[in-house]
Amino acid sequence: MSVQKIQIFDTTLRDGEQVPGCKLNQAEKLVIARQLEALGVDVIEAGFPVSSPGDFAAVAAVAAQTKDATVCGLTRAVENDIRVAAEALRGARRPRIHTGIGTSDLHVQQKLRTTREDVLARAVAAVKLSKSFVEDVEFYAEDAGRTDNEFLARVCEAVIAAGATVLNIPDTTGYCLPHEYGAKIKYLYENVKGIERAILSTHCHNDLGLATANSIAGVSNGARQIECTINGVGERAGNTALEEVVMILRQHPDLGLSTNVQTRRLAETSALVSHLMSMPVQANKAIVGANAFSHSSGIHQDGVIKCRETYEIIDPKEVGVVDSSIVLTARSGRAALAYRLQKLGYDFERPALNTAYASFLTLADRKREVGDEDLHALVEQEKLVAAN
Amino acid sequence: MSVQKIQIFDTTLRDGEQVPGCKLNQAEKLVIARQLEALGVDVIEAGFPVSSPGDFAAVAAVAAQTKDATVCGLTRAVENDIRVAAEALRGARRPRIHTGIGTSDLHVQQKLRTTREDVLARAVAAVKLSKSFVEDVEFYAEDAGRTDNEFLARVCEAVIAAGATVLNIPDTTGYCLPHEYGAKIKYLYENVKGIERAILSTHCHNDLGLATANSIAGVSNGARQIECTINGVGERAGNTALEEVVMILRQHPDLGLSTNVQTRRLAETSALVSHLMSMPVQANKAIVGANAFSHSSGIHQDGVIKCRETYEIIDPKEVGVVDSSIVLTARSGRAALAYRLQKLGYDFERPALNTAYASFLTLADRKREVGDEDLHALVEQEKLVAAN
Repeated sequence: MSVQKIQIFDTTLRDGEQVPGCKLNQAEKLVIARQLEALGVDVIEAGFPVSSPGDFAAVAAVAAQTKDATVCGLTRAVENDIRVAAEALRGARRPRIHTGIGTSDLHVQQKLRTTREDVLARAVAAVKLSKSFVEDVEFYAEDAGRTDNEFLARVCEAVIAAGATVLNIPDTTGYCLPHEYGAKIKYLYENVKGIERAILSTHCHNDLGLATANSIAGVSNGARQIECTINGVGERAGNTALEEVVMILRQHPDLGLSTNVQTRRLAETSALVSHLMSMPVQANKAIVGANAFSHSSGIHQDGVIKCRETYEIIDPKEVGVVDSSIVLTARSGRAALAYRLQKLGYDFERPALNTAYASFLTLADRKREVGDEDLHALVEQEKLVAAN
Repeated sequence: MSVQKIQIFDTTLRDGEQVPGCKLNQAEKLVIARQLEALGVDVIEAGFPVSSPGDFAAVAAVAAQTKDATVCGLTRAVENDIRVAAEALRGARRPRIHTGIGTSDLHVQQKLRTTREDVLARAVAAVKLSKSFVEDVEFYAEDAGRTDNEFLARVCEAVIAAGATVLNIPDTTGYCLPHEYGAKIKYLYENVKGIERAILSTHCHNDLGLATANSIAGVSNGARQIECTINGVGERAGNTALEEVVMILRQHPDLGLSTNVQTRRLAETSALVSHLMSMPVQANKAIVGANAFSHSSGIHQDGVIKCRETYEIIDPKEVGVVDSSIVLTARSGRAALAYRLQKLGYDFERPALNTAYASFLTLADRKREVGDEDLHALVEQEKLVAAN
């Protein structure tokens, strides 16, 4: 089976940054952009240049700094937005303008207060203008998740004819179920005339906790780019988490899809973004959470000690975590206690281990975690008991 | 279309509590159990009675306190585990014993170091013994996600014949893709003899960020119970998040599935569990994150002000959040600024609004968020400028 490459489009610096309290200054954006390039992302969306003077300057600085990755700037389907974005991207080796407009009836009628024909005309004009500045033009059909497929296909055909190289199909509100989103991408892949001249891109939001699954459904049905952010940061419940989709494609070679991401840099990238955005990552976050590779229950610890693969599908080193940890709590079993005691230099065998384990459980019911010092004390105490 | 009821099996107090540093004492478990009952969950898994004296006492206390929900205790397929669980559950009005054993080749050979036939015999014996104590017996086939479907079906048939009322099909390592997990449930639903006498249950882990999608794939293919935790807490990357699956079923009536959960209590339940477990919920967590309903980008704020549904698929009140918030940052647009100024009693129209907006952006580029005090100061400054 031939393996197809999936482009990773990171929008941590644009959609990710649209978070209350997470604004990054230019120096911070440059640090993150450098890290993203080292991580191996294909496209860095650096900002929305027309939105503020600070964002314009940051996009220009990222464009000047970046060597291999494509640098992208967001615009609305508005002439001034596009001119300003083109200006901000002037120093980029591989510039991309990302322009678009709402296509769902709700957006067309309630937000834009216009007609489908007008939206279609504005979309084409925006792509043509963008194309006069750069070769690589991505078009987003905002709220595509709730857009009628036939109209969406018409929009896609028109913007490809106008020069669009990438078609972004966002589930803007995070409403789609995976089979629905997959079916939408499949419909476009099979019905849009000229689709061989462009690639389809997923852009999913996590309002219902389905961004990752929807993105995978998209690439399983013909999309060739995933838009995502480090740690899934982004407005509301955030965007698709880069680390999750990358590791799914890696762990499921049967999908026949791969990325250029250097997975061993995932943990450090996650920590950097979390720190600079002041956005803590919860301990139970997939791939990059503090607990993602730690085992505390007795049954699991016993299994991991016997054979890592019983409970661990990813070697922590693959994502840059030094080692999975065995944490001792009241849920830990004899095997974990014996393993840790052995690491500390004590060799307990049954029945001594059973006695030590009973003392350990009493201690663990009182304390949340039992550390190495507690164990040394416990062993001393057992010795005294044994001596009497 | 008839709507089918999905049972919600909450395991916050058992699988959720298997987290380093999150151990709950008995009083805390009782508070959470009371909240879970008010929330409307069908089953409360209260603990693993044989694991420690503290857990035994907590399960007994939850059993005595709970009025309507089923109270469940976990065991291995081990005689003593089952006897101890039955004892802990004696005071429950609706007791359930949850017993099981690993069924994947990896678990059978590497962890249990035995044969499939032996596993089958132990499974049947465990269910029969459990059935001698309680009517309601749930069987888990550990690592079912990686278990060969034909063997899994044989195990299911044997335990149903032995009296199991619920068949738990855990994706223990969080490895399955939604279409794979859905296909597994469908296979069992269509091939297990006697399946009409039991219900299938999903139990998914979030190692690849797919627990929610896998659970929905399960109930879309015949499962009638979802095992989950508040905030998705649990070992490693955690379990399926209760709030996500419940809101998906509610927002997608086309699935024809509903639960008994009182969604207006989701926010308070999330806060309670987060507090008692000392497990912060990240701001961009779906449904219950601090930012789940807040809008900061200009385009989105403009849309929400015109028509909430353009960017919001859930009314925050439905999950117990008082209101969505509009946060002003450098990504906010004129519409949001004018809206907030109006709320503060100022009526700006263009071109005065344009001038104020330029000052606002300069301020917002410096500050991460612009608060009401900043706006009052900004208005005063604009007045001075206008007066000169």
